[in-house]
Amino acid sequence: MAEINHKVGISASPAAVYAYLTTDEGLAHWWTWDVSGAGAVGSVIAFRFQGKGPDFKVVELQPSNLVRWQHTGNVPSEWVGTEISFVLDETESQTFVRFKHSGWQEASDFLAHCSTKWAVFLLSLKGSLETGRGHPFPDDLHIDHS
Amino acid sequence: MAEINHKVGISASPAAVYAYLTTDEGLAHWWTWDVSGAGAVGSVIAFRFQGKGPDFKVVELQPSNLVRWQHTGNVPSEWVGTEISFVLDETESQTFVRFKHSGWQEASDFLAHCSTKWAVFLLSLKGSLETGRGHPFPDDLHIDHS
Repeated sequence: MAEINHKVGISASPAAVYAYLTTDEGLAHWWTWDVSGAGAVGSVIAFRFQGKGPDFKVVELQPSNLVRWQHTGNVPSEWVGTEISFVLDETESQTFVRFKHSGWQEASDFLAHCSTKWAVFLLSLKGSLETGRGHPFPDDLHIDHS
Repeated sequence: MAEINHKVGISASPAAVYAYLTTDEGLAHWWTWDVSGAGAVGSVIAFRFQGKGPDFKVVELQPSNLVRWQHTGNVPSEWVGTEISFVLDETESQTFVRFKHSGWQEASDFLAHCSTKWAVFLLSLKGSLETGRGHPFPDDLHIDHS
């Protein structure tokens, strides 16, 4: 099994970060404008990029502390069986977000691509909370010319 | 063992990317301005950040194709025993850079931090080659407020 790990520190309260991870409006600030379905444990969030994209089932929520999603459906195929978690840790000066995308079959080229792209989106999360300017799809930073 | 993987696509020739990975002048464009010692296999590159930083021994070079470094010394401690590789792959429209930092003892918080920071520096490599404007230390993008 292979996984992606990231960590960013955000000048915002854990409650504010948590809201950006658990509501359609919040998620639209940093990952993709086309998102629907975010809610309580058991809800399925549909993230869309030009009409296509993954669904994630919310499997665990601890307010201001933990968000855990399980991939559901078949798109993208390498994400089948994977899970994403965000762990929030408050310090005096910032809230750290510890991101993990685990359960990959192997450290493929697509994992490497997604690892870089997740960094871009987590920095978009940081920017959206600190300055009001995130870069969700379709305004996301391009990491290649494909 | 844990590892970090990234992939970016750069509008530059493999030879141009390779030069930015194998010379002091090239490395200074994107990781840190304070770098010395880059050269043939066996050379030790000193990367410095406010006077401190890691050394890497060049262990394999395949021109325009592969660069492999082994960490040497004791700083930072979690990097002891780790290795970094850059594999270049030319396509019609871009050169893909496949980055790997492997041999970590565990997927620690510091690995997560470094994973995000490597993405930032690989995008700095991309920017430095495509626009002439990289963001090496001390002009690097901050991912937290520590």
